[in-house]
Amino acid sequence: MARPGKSVSVGIGDDCAVLRLPRGHEALVTTDFSLEGIHFRRDWQSAECIGHRCLARGLSDIAAMGGRPIAAFLSLGLPSAVQQRWVDGFFRGFLGLASKLNVQLAGGDTAESRSGVLADVMVLGSVPRGRALLRSGARPGDQIYVTGELGRSAASLRDLMSGKVRKSDIYPEPRIAVGEWLRKNRVASAAIDQSDGLSTDLSHICKAGGVGAVIEASAVPVHPESSLELALHGGEDYELLFTAPGSKRLPGKIAGIRITQIGEIVKGRSTHVVTDGRRLRLQARGWQHFRR
Amino acid sequence: MARPGKSVSVGIGDDCAVLRLPRGHEALVTTDFSLEGIHFRRDWQSAECIGHRCLARGLSDIAAMGGRPIAAFLSLGLPSAVQQRWVDGFFRGFLGLASKLNVQLAGGDTAESRSGVLADVMVLGSVPRGRALLRSGARPGDQIYVTGELGRSAASLRDLMSGKVRKSDIYPEPRIAVGEWLRKNRVASAAIDQSDGLSTDLSHICKAGGVGAVIEASAVPVHPESSLELALHGGEDYELLFTAPGSKRLPGKIAGIRITQIGEIVKGRSTHVVTDGRRLRLQARGWQHFRR
Repeated sequence: MARPGKSVSVGIGDDCAVLRLPRGHEALVTTDFSLEGIHFRRDWQSAECIGHRCLARGLSDIAAMGGRPIAAFLSLGLPSAVQQRWVDGFFRGFLGLASKLNVQLAGGDTAESRSGVLADVMVLGSVPRGRALLRSGARPGDQIYVTGELGRSAASLRDLMSGKVRKSDIYPEPRIAVGEWLRKNRVASAAIDQSDGLSTDLSHICKAGGVGAVIEASAVPVHPESSLELALHGGEDYELLFTAPGSKRLPGKIAGIRITQIGEIVKGRSTHVVTDGRRLRLQARGWQHFRR
Repeated sequence: MARPGKSVSVGIGDDCAVLRLPRGHEALVTTDFSLEGIHFRRDWQSAECIGHRCLARGLSDIAAMGGRPIAAFLSLGLPSAVQQRWVDGFFRGFLGLASKLNVQLAGGDTAESRSGVLADVMVLGSVPRGRALLRSGARPGDQIYVTGELGRSAASLRDLMSGKVRKSDIYPEPRIAVGEWLRKNRVASAAIDQSDGLSTDLSHICKAGGVGAVIEASAVPVHPESSLELALHGGEDYELLFTAPGSKRLPGKIAGIRITQIGEIVKGRSTHVVTDGRRLRLQARGWQHFRR
């Protein structure tokens, strides 16, 4: 499947894949386990969309480190009843995104699963040595930014659960180019991808940096189909959430993606949201997937 | 869990692990999906043994490339009924082997599994650029070698299936030091790890090199508890199978492990075994795990 390229010296077919990193780079590795019934449902999403999303999770982690992805590895467990047509669709979605972002499928494994479909995806990327964007660098006075719009995935889930729609395919785009821009321009003090929900992901940045945060509710870029509540607590939009010193001037768009300042890092350990002049505690109660 | 060391710049707790490869090295990546009922059974093996074996599979792949392992990533699916004691045992086995071979657990994921225990393990290693031992280099006239003794895992399975024993814990040792020795001394023309059974693994080397092979049955190092049949076709001993030009003189032991010459690479595409003076076709009918 993988044709060895410049970065992939040996692809599928030996005991290991052999991958070349650019000189002076270190390796980034992320793994994401996606399980039917928890992260996706075959009756709610197309096979293509599920394949895309399983890979997008890992690519988004690479983006949040300011890295560039090189190769992906897919371990796929399939119930014996799954039709080949579904598997073909899954691979179309997975490989379509991989090809778009110049990532090779360089290995993996398949097995029969006795319950639902499960996909464990590993992505290998690289970043110049010592230059990865970490969660831990936010300092009081830093401004808080987010890419794109929030709440779309959660709105789709709301509509599926209420029966308003039967199927909903959302294809998040990992913000690789934005992450690279932030790293190259030495702008971000901390970064994370919005996978668990803004409130939860922001709490990770605050905990890692030993700081607090205040979010301005009216500034949050809410997706037109969504709500402030879902934008604050819904997950899986895979936008980047990052902080930058107040002295840095950021453009309105990076790599074509809108950048919005939504608040500020403060001293202390707590996170608040200011809405209609009132300052409320922002609880980290993000995304729980489709959990029962 | 992982304390960042020399190779692991950032361990568990950020969006990605950040790993440093030695200068001039390229990355080796292998993934192995181990499923309850197929690769292991909780009633047949201890939790420690299962944890050890899940990691051993990947480390053995690194050994077969002549590489050195750096970090492991574990995605673990657990049924809700599994007791914490079992999970602790699994980690004891997994981390015990990791520590012995200086490998850090640098990330992973856990999820609830609706069927059995499943573990997807990714191992990242490194090898000097362009020096990985591949499956494809065997040439006619090369001698075929194997480390250690074969057939022990298959004998254990036979005893479990027949009810002769109730439990059987076998802890294979990935042959990292042997693989590194072969690579450093530029001895091996091709290498693979014996995971699917000698007949199948040899067929991979023959196919990759476009060559055939003749094995001398009396030379095969059969484990004392096993049989020639199980040594030829049983799998999961995780010994190294490699070829070297006839001009190379190999020691009887490498890194303390016995090395046995068992046959020769020949022209053509077929593999034979010579037993009692008769030359029989060696069918690739290795290991099918515990498959129903």
